[in-house]
Amino acid sequence: MVSGPSGSGKNRVISEAMKVTQGLRYSISATTRPRRLNERDGVDYHFVSLDRFQDMIRQDDLLEYAEVYGNFYGTPRKPVEDVLAAGEDVILDLDVQGALQIRQRCPDAVLVFLLPPSIAELERRIRSRGTDDEATIRRRMNSALNEISALSQYTYAIVNDELEDAVRSLVAIIEAERCRTSRFVRASSDEMRSQSISE
Amino acid sequence: MVSGPSGSGKNRVISEAMKVTQGLRYSISATTRPRRLNERDGVDYHFVSLDRFQDMIRQDDLLEYAEVYGNFYGTPRKPVEDVLAAGEDVILDLDVQGALQIRQRCPDAVLVFLLPPSIAELERRIRSRGTDDEATIRRRMNSALNEISALSQYTYAIVNDELEDAVRSLVAIIEAERCRTSRFVRASSDEMRSQSISE
Repeated sequence: MVSGPSGSGKNRVISEAMKVTQGLRYSISATTRPRRLNERDGVDYHFVSLDRFQDMIRQDDLLEYAEVYGNFYGTPRKPVEDVLAAGEDVILDLDVQGALQIRQRCPDAVLVFLLPPSIAELERRIRSRGTDDEATIRRRMNSALNEISALSQYTYAIVNDELEDAVRSLVAIIEAERCRTSRFVRASSDEMRSQSISE
Repeated sequence: MVSGPSGSGKNRVISEAMKVTQGLRYSISATTRPRRLNERDGVDYHFVSLDRFQDMIRQDDLLEYAEVYGNFYGTPRKPVEDVLAAGEDVILDLDVQGALQIRQRCPDAVLVFLLPPSIAELERRIRSRGTDDEATIRRRMNSALNEISALSQYTYAIVNDELEDAVRSLVAIIEAERCRTSRFVRASSDEMRSQSISE
């Protein structure tokens, strides 16, 4: 799970990391917010009505959900479970509330926080989108500072100063987590033991 | 700290990982065992007399030490502390006893276990050295199987099947550990806060 405030460059880092990492799928969130011009339904998000979203909540089809700025966002459960059952990994782009909800249910989940290099650079990046009015920019800045205060609850933090370095760090975290003995010990020691006996 | 039985290819993986990792120093162990032909004093080990080794123990100059096959091995404390104080990392090549001793004293230390791809391959590698007699080979095999049983006490495990993959995994673990918020949170949130106040 990767979190990071607007302006942390999270989307770009995730998509670059996915290009160079095998066995990693992106979890597409469902949302009730309107689609932006550059977004594609079923690729960037599943854009759904509020009624549909409420059905998903009722049927426990969401691993987590949250209301942000009056819109709902949630993580469909089944695609995540299917990827994990196939032995692959899922990358989720989540805000702090969502990430902490999922960690409650999946203690194995890994939390990565992406940080802008500085507050000034964060503001510059939020402004450079050019799509938001001044009130929205202020709200995004405050929300970003709020999210950063949750940093200590995350396992890893990456400062996105140079894109290439940030991508390399995210790829390294995924690779290192795959080497964790807690994910790994049973299978390999069983294999060792059976080979040892057969010799 | 990297452990792995004879035949796990540990030395090679460590030296390749060091070539591509900034800010990483190798801790040179002290030992009372005789120097082998291809080894250099002060590079591969500090070769010392038993008297000198006992002095080091008495003066608490060793972070850990152990007796293996009748010889003593230990980690000089000062070089490790100096590198850490300079903000760099130290890589230690340790047997299981040594690694677990150091973790007692330094709970932040990261334990990586390097595994041979199979028992058969382990034996092949131990035999291919050509320097050991049959009894030594048996002893090394038993000791290797014994060490592998400590795997679950390690944080990470890497199967050294292809050297290049094993090196990439070790480098990734070092990089990921450097992103851990527990090593990182105080410095960066202080920085954020002071920037935030000054704007």
